[in-house]
Amino acid sequence: MSASIFAARRERARKLMREQGLDALLVSHAANRYYLSGFELHDPQCNESAGRLILMTDGQDLLCTDARYDDAAKRLWPEDRVVIYGQDAPEDIAGRLRDLAGGRRLRLGFEARLIRLDFYERLFADKSLEAVRADGLVEGLRLLKDADEIRRMEASCRLNRQLMDWLPERLAPGRSEAEIAWDVEVFFRERGASELAFASIVARGPNAALPHAVPGRDAVLGAEDLVLVDVGCRLDDYCSDQTRTFWAGANPSPRFRETLALVQEAQARAIEMIRPGVAACDVYAAARNLFARHNKAHAFTHGLGHGVGLETHEGPALNNRSHTLLEPGMIVTVEPGLYDAAWGGVRWEHMVLVTESGHRIL
Amino acid sequence: MSASIFAARRERARKLMREQGLDALLVSHAANRYYLSGFELHDPQCNESAGRLILMTDGQDLLCTDARYDDAAKRLWPEDRVVIYGQDAPEDIAGRLRDLAGGRRLRLGFEARLIRLDFYERLFADKSLEAVRADGLVEGLRLLKDADEIRRMEASCRLNRQLMDWLPERLAPGRSEAEIAWDVEVFFRERGASELAFASIVARGPNAALPHAVPGRDAVLGAEDLVLVDVGCRLDDYCSDQTRTFWAGANPSPRFRETLALVQEAQARAIEMIRPGVAACDVYAAARNLFARHNKAHAFTHGLGHGVGLETHEGPALNNRSHTLLEPGMIVTVEPGLYDAAWGGVRWEHMVLVTESGHRIL
Repeated sequence: MSASIFAARRERARKLMREQGLDALLVSHAANRYYLSGFELHDPQCNESAGRLILMTDGQDLLCTDARYDDAAKRLWPEDRVVIYGQDAPEDIAGRLRDLAGGRRLRLGFEARLIRLDFYERLFADKSLEAVRADGLVEGLRLLKDADEIRRMEASCRLNRQLMDWLPERLAPGRSEAEIAWDVEVFFRERGASELAFASIVARGPNAALPHAVPGRDAVLGAEDLVLVDVGCRLDDYCSDQTRTFWAGANPSPRFRETLALVQEAQARAIEMIRPGVAACDVYAAARNLFARHNKAHAFTHGLGHGVGLETHEGPALNNRSHTLLEPGMIVTVEPGLYDAAWGGVRWEHMVLVTESGHRIL
Repeated sequence: MSASIFAARRERARKLMREQGLDALLVSHAANRYYLSGFELHDPQCNESAGRLILMTDGQDLLCTDARYDDAAKRLWPEDRVVIYGQDAPEDIAGRLRDLAGGRRLRLGFEARLIRLDFYERLFADKSLEAVRADGLVEGLRLLKDADEIRRMEASCRLNRQLMDWLPERLAPGRSEAEIAWDVEVFFRERGASELAFASIVARGPNAALPHAVPGRDAVLGAEDLVLVDVGCRLDDYCSDQTRTFWAGANPSPRFRETLALVQEAQARAIEMIRPGVAACDVYAAARNLFARHNKAHAFTHGLGHGVGLETHEGPALNNRSHTLLEPGMIVTVEPGLYDAAWGGVRWEHMVLVTESGHRIL
């Protein structure tokens, strides 16, 4: 991605910072940091940061990291605004901000839902920093995909659809869920994906009813079998997420065909609703109401979908509690499903872009 | 792993809890949670928890998660001690603890370096809970690998060594760092590894000097080339971490040979030091002092190693600030290296188990 895209995003964030009276904003969540700077989409471990970005309302943004990333940071950022911290990252960051503030108290925004307690306490032990909650500021920007992001999302989703077109030939009797999951991963990786977007679900028979099914080595396809496949890849940084439920064999059971038809009809009803100004909960309701009319609402045990982008799970949620109004540039999954622990389940998922005039399925 | 292993670990944790006067301990970090319960080694995203374990001094431990994991939790845990929380996880958890405490104030340990500020504030808004810092309690147990863990670490490391034996034939002129990195991943996965232990480093020539080198599609091996390979796999839950620096070609340069010999000698000196009672910083010093005697200390730009286990990076650190005394059951990497940005670098890494009588290289 070009540096100008990241710079433009920082300007959008800066506008919100000014509206909230912030002098600076500490960005530590990996996807938020990357979205605004291009620096490191991943942390090495969830308990180990690759670095923090600090946006300044005066535009002199700081990229703070440790010595491992010295070279990577300086390739990306003006060297005089790279802060290489030592063992005490919060103290080193506070010190640099104190110097910049020159005696003035700095109103520093932070993400209370993401920052670690210990880091927070040590950073704001510096009394020249005033802690101001700024949850959701960056996530709010990320909700609306720009043209470059939409192109990447389209490409990522296209590869995922190609996988789904190719996959049925791999669903042979005697093959295990785990073998098929590895086929999926190799397909994605050999075609340019950097990683899976999330842990693949390949679930046969009753396993398809489990929202958190782990592909098993001993779970082997029968001659006539239901197989739910919920997988995604990361291509050029952006995640895709698709579900199909296949019948492996020549004779899909009547129950499978009927359930699939109902799930796909619910999906179509929900997608029809998608346009700017519609509340997310109303899209959810469109699917749920159809299930309810067929006395199946109890078997639809999860939300209808979620935003997707740099992360597989991001805003907006499509569920009964989400009153977010859809806006052009949002990309959401629409993935209704019906489950029965004794039998299995059917889920079907598309990614849908909200456009000016309505929507487009990716 | 058998349930009795997890139960025994919880008893060890409970002993420490009693010593610290805790009634309960909130465990939210994925690796700590898994270590004590067998529940979910990974969170779906770093900003999205798969669940929290609460150890109780009375032994009635709670497994708290959301509806996605309902089935997985109840397969593992007594159903009456599974807490399925809704949108407000901290409030739901606090409510259950309040009920258990029956009017008494509960001293609840928490991990300040790991817990999110917002979660902390909302949980301890309940005045029947007293917040007590308990950082490092679980990590302290994880430092010392039990017999089952040592077997798994040996197997994971063995696969990594097999990879290193196999890899030279893949280091042909014209192949890219990225292609070789994919070879590594396929090798591990086809032999049972569930994933990479960390993002692979395959770095040729000057790239080998970068501590955070990302394998490039355009970085292609020459006819005579230096290639640093730092990779690991997760096998049966446990991580391995090995580095070798190869010469691809028939005529290793004198500088490569000399640097490699010095790095390997430093590694040997450090490993010789490893035995119970020795301070981690002294192991580091053994390598560094050798480099210093050859006027190369400036080119040794990182710590000597780190603990490894369920996570690639865990305690104890082997660096100049680490005064931890080695104990039997610790497993550390020993990975000295010498770097020159204009030329490249050489690193060589073994995993070493501290034994009663000294050490053993895995």
